[in-house]
Amino acid sequence: MRPALCKERRWYHELSYASHGEPTDVLSFQTTSDDVNHDPTDENLVHVKMIHSPWNPADINTVQGTYPSPAKSLGIKDNLSAESLYFSDRWVAGSEGWGRITSDSKNLRKGSLVAIGTPGLGTLRSSLWIPESSLLVLSEEILGISGPAGCSLIQLGGTAFRMLSDFAPLQPGDVVVQNAGNSAVGLMASQIAASKGISMASVVRRGSRSQDEYDELVEYLLSKGKNSLVIAEEDLDDKESLRRFQAELKQISVSNELPKLALNAVGGASVKALIRSLENGGTLVTYGGMSAQPVVLGTPQLIFKDIRAVGYWHSRWMIQQSHEQKQEMVNILSKAVLDKSIECPPVKVFPLKNVEEALHWQSSQGSIRKKLIWDCQEI
Amino acid sequence: MRPALCKERRWYHELSYASHGEPTDVLSFQTTSDDVNHDPTDENLVHVKMIHSPWNPADINTVQGTYPSPAKSLGIKDNLSAESLYFSDRWVAGSEGWGRITSDSKNLRKGSLVAIGTPGLGTLRSSLWIPESSLLVLSEEILGISGPAGCSLIQLGGTAFRMLSDFAPLQPGDVVVQNAGNSAVGLMASQIAASKGISMASVVRRGSRSQDEYDELVEYLLSKGKNSLVIAEEDLDDKESLRRFQAELKQISVSNELPKLALNAVGGASVKALIRSLENGGTLVTYGGMSAQPVVLGTPQLIFKDIRAVGYWHSRWMIQQSHEQKQEMVNILSKAVLDKSIECPPVKVFPLKNVEEALHWQSSQGSIRKKLIWDCQEI
Repeated sequence: MRPALCKERRWYHELSYASHGEPTDVLSFQTTSDDVNHDPTDENLVHVKMIHSPWNPADINTVQGTYPSPAKSLGIKDNLSAESLYFSDRWVAGSEGWGRITSDSKNLRKGSLVAIGTPGLGTLRSSLWIPESSLLVLSEEILGISGPAGCSLIQLGGTAFRMLSDFAPLQPGDVVVQNAGNSAVGLMASQIAASKGISMASVVRRGSRSQDEYDELVEYLLSKGKNSLVIAEEDLDDKESLRRFQAELKQISVSNELPKLALNAVGGASVKALIRSLENGGTLVTYGGMSAQPVVLGTPQLIFKDIRAVGYWHSRWMIQQSHEQKQEMVNILSKAVLDKSIECPPVKVFPLKNVEEALHWQSSQGSIRKKLIWDCQEI
Repeated sequence: MRPALCKERRWYHELSYASHGEPTDVLSFQTTSDDVNHDPTDENLVHVKMIHSPWNPADINTVQGTYPSPAKSLGIKDNLSAESLYFSDRWVAGSEGWGRITSDSKNLRKGSLVAIGTPGLGTLRSSLWIPESSLLVLSEEILGISGPAGCSLIQLGGTAFRMLSDFAPLQPGDVVVQNAGNSAVGLMASQIAASKGISMASVVRRGSRSQDEYDELVEYLLSKGKNSLVIAEEDLDDKESLRRFQAELKQISVSNELPKLALNAVGGASVKALIRSLENGGTLVTYGGMSAQPVVLGTPQLIFKDIRAVGYWHSRWMIQQSHEQKQEMVNILSKAVLDKSIECPPVKVFPLKNVEEALHWQSSQGSIRKKLIWDCQEI
């Protein structure tokens, strides 16, 4: 047992679950004395006190059991000796977040602000022991500028950043098209695109919104989201409006071309509009399936239009890339937050122990939604 | 007008059409004196007397108007000064074939056996003027070994060869899965795979075949097709049989892995089985859509299984690649025919003028079909 732990007798707390199900049913706040648990002997493990952790859609699906555990499906347990990391025998929810190093560390400074760079370890907890190589160092100022929202930068901003970087040879002046423009990743994507001189056109569902609510959403996506064009999916139903949309897309592209890249988090009918908006040889990247409808590709689109459909799973990228590559991405994203070229989506913060209140608030939000951020410090 | 043409007053003939429709309705045999037409002044144009041209599915779809003209969609007209190539004001059917050079040529030997290496020019004709750069030289022996069947080597064998070469890092000992294993391309693919030490597993439709007919087909695909495994699509309906199929696929792979590559010419339900047979990170290449059903990809297959769906259009490859790359491929395929590691599918030959009889024969074939080859020489 580490002497430091014994002297400073602390309470450890977490949001965890023993079986899969709806978070409101299975997720509960657990608290215990942290010196009854595993004492890591690996000297590369450092102790991190968590500050904030976001509640991303993937975290909900992981608790529900419909989202695969990156730890399990990507073989991460073998590398990270997971048993030594966990104070709990239950599954701890959450997959990213930031905290502060509170133990001595070989290569990192005690007190540094760090993000948990390995997904799937469970971040909705007050503290954890974790290998240095899983930590990404953040500039101290980011906490002041972004507030708690910044803790979701790596999953949200990272997903958007990689999709805009790794799948199509984009140049300033190009245009990209996406659905779910009002999702957190969609908002980050349009801002990151703008910071690279790339225009974003967002397709959003009007759904049951009133005209006022819809106008407010469009205004929000154009201003805060920095989109160049926003269109309702429902307005792309007929060929004529689709042609008009294509003409507008070409107009906002410097080279008068359709997008080479489309980002899909929805599936179904919405994908049809995205594919038709793509230039020959374009790429459709799928990172979510909100509609629960699959991605349907006509054979002529594949063969003659040369459309390529791929998926993007940010957890895979985070596990497979080197620490250097991850740290480089974090540096770029942090810099963009610091110089205000991107702004994290609006959030509301709840302490872990208020789990019921937080989940109830989260399910009863209106048109422009805020992200739920957990405060891991309070007790 | 070239003196040679005037002296040797010849009759030119073609199978051509003035409007799109069913080949039986719109395709007709046309004959004319060939000196009334354009006299090419470009000294790089050479005169080729056609020998054989195959009747590929894409040729039928082009006449029907459901298959885009490579010439039109890939901007080939600008490069090839198409007007000087055509004796006819009608569209000439056919997209590949071989013939013999009958004019003096800068770089090629008069009398050489050559394949038309640029798709979309119309090959169902007795002769054409064509740039040297569109001709691919064939070894003289291939005509003796393959017979007329060899004229379809570039489209069929080329499609199969490129799909096996360009989309996945295949090694000897790997396994590839395909549907339409009994199609002409499917047969070439399994033979080419075998010649590279790669096993092919073919999914075929049992359909309305009797057990005897089905057994005969399987035997044919295993022996002549050199498949390692043949299974009926209908036998992959339930999870248990799919699991058995996956186990068999792993067993015939040296590394005990599922295929990295799947070739799809069908679409619909058949694609579902292919995708489920793929290793994580695998690629589905679509080159046809016989079922007229689209390619459906579940979001989890894209994101978590990292399946990539692309299309392959051999005409695009043939137009976009350099002459050297095309000639290199032809050399490899020719060598494989000469050393009997691949054998072209069985054919039946009809002269152009017997168009009605040929199309009627073609539509009334049985279980193991032969390919229709046009004899462009006879009149």
